[in-house]
Amino acid sequence: MQWIDYLSRYQDRLIEDVIDLIRIPSVSALPEHAPDVQRAATFVARRLAAAGIANVSVLPTGRHPLVVGEWNGAPGKPTVMLYGHFDVQPADPLGLWTSPPFDPALRDGRIFGRGASDMKGNLIAVIAAVQAMLETTGTLPVNVRFLFDGEEEIGSPSLPAIIAAHQARLACDVVVSGDGVQWSESEPAVVMSIRGSCTMSFDVIGPAMDVHSGIHGGAVQNPLHALAAMVASLHSPDGKVAVEGFYDDVATVSAEERDRIASVPHDDGTYRASVGVDALFGEEGYSTPERIGIRPTLEINGMWGGFQGAGSKTIIPAEAHAKLSCRLVPDQDPERIRDCIQAHLEKHTLPGTRVVIHRRPGVAYPYVIPASHPGIRAARSVLAERYGREPYHWRLGATLPVSGILQQQLGVHTVMFGFSSPDEQFHAPNEFFRLSSFYRAQIATGQLLQQLGAYAPAAFWERPE
Amino acid sequence: MQWIDYLSRYQDRLIEDVIDLIRIPSVSALPEHAPDVQRAATFVARRLAAAGIANVSVLPTGRHPLVVGEWNGAPGKPTVMLYGHFDVQPADPLGLWTSPPFDPALRDGRIFGRGASDMKGNLIAVIAAVQAMLETTGTLPVNVRFLFDGEEEIGSPSLPAIIAAHQARLACDVVVSGDGVQWSESEPAVVMSIRGSCTMSFDVIGPAMDVHSGIHGGAVQNPLHALAAMVASLHSPDGKVAVEGFYDDVATVSAEERDRIASVPHDDGTYRASVGVDALFGEEGYSTPERIGIRPTLEINGMWGGFQGAGSKTIIPAEAHAKLSCRLVPDQDPERIRDCIQAHLEKHTLPGTRVVIHRRPGVAYPYVIPASHPGIRAARSVLAERYGREPYHWRLGATLPVSGILQQQLGVHTVMFGFSSPDEQFHAPNEFFRLSSFYRAQIATGQLLQQLGAYAPAAFWERPE
Repeated sequence: MQWIDYLSRYQDRLIEDVIDLIRIPSVSALPEHAPDVQRAATFVARRLAAAGIANVSVLPTGRHPLVVGEWNGAPGKPTVMLYGHFDVQPADPLGLWTSPPFDPALRDGRIFGRGASDMKGNLIAVIAAVQAMLETTGTLPVNVRFLFDGEEEIGSPSLPAIIAAHQARLACDVVVSGDGVQWSESEPAVVMSIRGSCTMSFDVIGPAMDVHSGIHGGAVQNPLHALAAMVASLHSPDGKVAVEGFYDDVATVSAEERDRIASVPHDDGTYRASVGVDALFGEEGYSTPERIGIRPTLEINGMWGGFQGAGSKTIIPAEAHAKLSCRLVPDQDPERIRDCIQAHLEKHTLPGTRVVIHRRPGVAYPYVIPASHPGIRAARSVLAERYGREPYHWRLGATLPVSGILQQQLGVHTVMFGFSSPDEQFHAPNEFFRLSSFYRAQIATGQLLQQLGAYAPAAFWERPE
Repeated sequence: MQWIDYLSRYQDRLIEDVIDLIRIPSVSALPEHAPDVQRAATFVARRLAAAGIANVSVLPTGRHPLVVGEWNGAPGKPTVMLYGHFDVQPADPLGLWTSPPFDPALRDGRIFGRGASDMKGNLIAVIAAVQAMLETTGTLPVNVRFLFDGEEEIGSPSLPAIIAAHQARLACDVVVSGDGVQWSESEPAVVMSIRGSCTMSFDVIGPAMDVHSGIHGGAVQNPLHALAAMVASLHSPDGKVAVEGFYDDVATVSAEERDRIASVPHDDGTYRASVGVDALFGEEGYSTPERIGIRPTLEINGMWGGFQGAGSKTIIPAEAHAKLSCRLVPDQDPERIRDCIQAHLEKHTLPGTRVVIHRRPGVAYPYVIPASHPGIRAARSVLAERYGREPYHWRLGATLPVSGILQQQLGVHTVMFGFSSPDEQFHAPNEFFRLSSFYRAQIATGQLLQQLGAYAPAAFWERPE
């Protein structure tokens, strides 16, 4: 039996694997779900062992564990690290889900559930490809390292230390990450860059307790007003981030690269309809794909304070809060950006309030891969065959911190090779993964390993002129 | 037995009445507490009947009931309406209460619990004063109307219609409201004005669903940014409300009146410490007592949107929300102010969002009483005797909508005659009422009725020159 036939035959069982994995609510951001992240790690480790990988370990960290594994049966061949993650985003607001986020439902050829698309489906697909080859041929075209993170959705804070501690075991020539998207269900894309990120939160502290807006209103600064003024000060009306120094290290993008971005089909009207807004809004002087792909952002992700119940409660609250995150582009440094934002917030603190700023670990560096890299050439070839058309050149807006971490620590490049589609509602209610994409991911991953196996290991270490 | 001795003898039993009433969580703002507001109405009606008032009714409304009662045994004497309310503010945040808000605790001569000070203690005191006189003398020095609201904390939306429907039954010469404060535990004050109020809420609507800040960040307006910009636009840096037309109808306060306000002792340092802030903040050109007493405000009472959990969730949320309220001064019209704010919000709506504005019933008109009114003269006299010092001339910042409603509908003035102290944490965690104030309220209310009984009814209808 060919390995592709093996995958066809066992497709129903593989879908069950995805369903079982989604059932584990491995929300890395919420401390109460830490045991679930641990359970997901155990599930993934067992599944990897069942696929024929003898050398599998669950590695504890200060927070959530990682799963690593290796297969070294192809001497002289390149060593490929297969990267993924088994943690997921929080599922709230729960009320907007058609079926429960952790009770996966199959409807219309799709698996619905938190993590279906990002990236439990893609993760099982990678394991399935390896298993199919091992079970049918007894070997693989390359040596393999598995690295499955349990903290990706909180910025992979433990990953650098784990890589440092296991550097020899994780050494490889190239990384293939299953955590990524194609252009659409029917159109492939090679991801040439990803944005970095950093997060912060801050509290605006006012009176010692919530006070009555009649008794005190007019004489005391309202922390909600102060918060709003601070948040409003972060942007200028032309859509630029108004934080001093924010754009200092943004590398100029060449006219040729902007032409390549412009050559990718995009329609603002279609995009506008897809997100459900009447008008788009962003930085003046840039197209929508440029705003998403090559420009940095600062977004407030949550903001709250005071009374949120039904009716009214006429108070001046004691505190107000905000969470923010940035998307960063080459060559912005996440820690330097946080320094700039902190200085801005401190400068814009209003009289009668004080501000407490929180930085958490888990920044991500922006990342770019050269178009001449063998991994990109192999990915283009496999995608062109599988989709029947050339993949687009994509500057991705999202963040996948592992690429920057692996580049810094192991010196290797990462080929983004995930099969989610942008409409699959990841990080939002009613996330789903297409079964067609799940199957395609398995075949494409196997074929990518075959193509990578045709290169000498040294080919991955040549620098482009 | 004298009626004052009666009150002394039964003080423990009266305290039990307050405790029993606080145990009923009559939060009018929260629909799930509607049955509790109804239970509180029944409790108050029964307590009034037990005090010797034969003619008591619970009047249903579209939301929460009112309790009315009357006693007409003093022909030729003035008719005094005794006003109060038995609903309370929400109790959240629950975690900040030392003892549960609806399980009252007696500590250090104080009753702790939601509504202890505002105004279940004052309400029982009014009933107690009447009961003591009826039980000991068989009569009262004036005719009495009772009007106890169950919707005061949500702006008394049903009161105007109830008064209109029961106008003959409620006709009176003057109102005495037990819903109010003295200057401090040891210093009395006559309240010469109260601020009006209006509330609104609005939603800023962005994408059709929460979207990923990496995939879409930079291209879509963030409703939290739009909300912050809108809220920030409501004030100018000098502390003024920046809504066009907001100050148009504010009556000029005379230099003499500003002198009277300045003659009331106030220390900004002490006040600052009492609210726990490093610096005060308010409208330029006005003192703290003026900012609270004679100037209007616009306060955001609650604001929220996006992710509020632990950790981070990198979304651009679909919606953001805010609740606001204004304190108004003569001669601002609450509905006209809401029109101004609505126009401002619509004008400041940012591209890529839309705004939905909600107005709820329950506005309150600002109110002033002439210094020459017999009710003020009587109140000054009783307070001077009970406290051993002349009461202060107080322009109150808080809102008691009933005064404006009764003035408009029945043509009568209201004497504010409550015995809470400003430090008793009403509308906040750990609300309490002093037992000494509770006792004093009973005596003072009885004495006020005696003094009012010395006037001819016509005296209450003379207009000041």
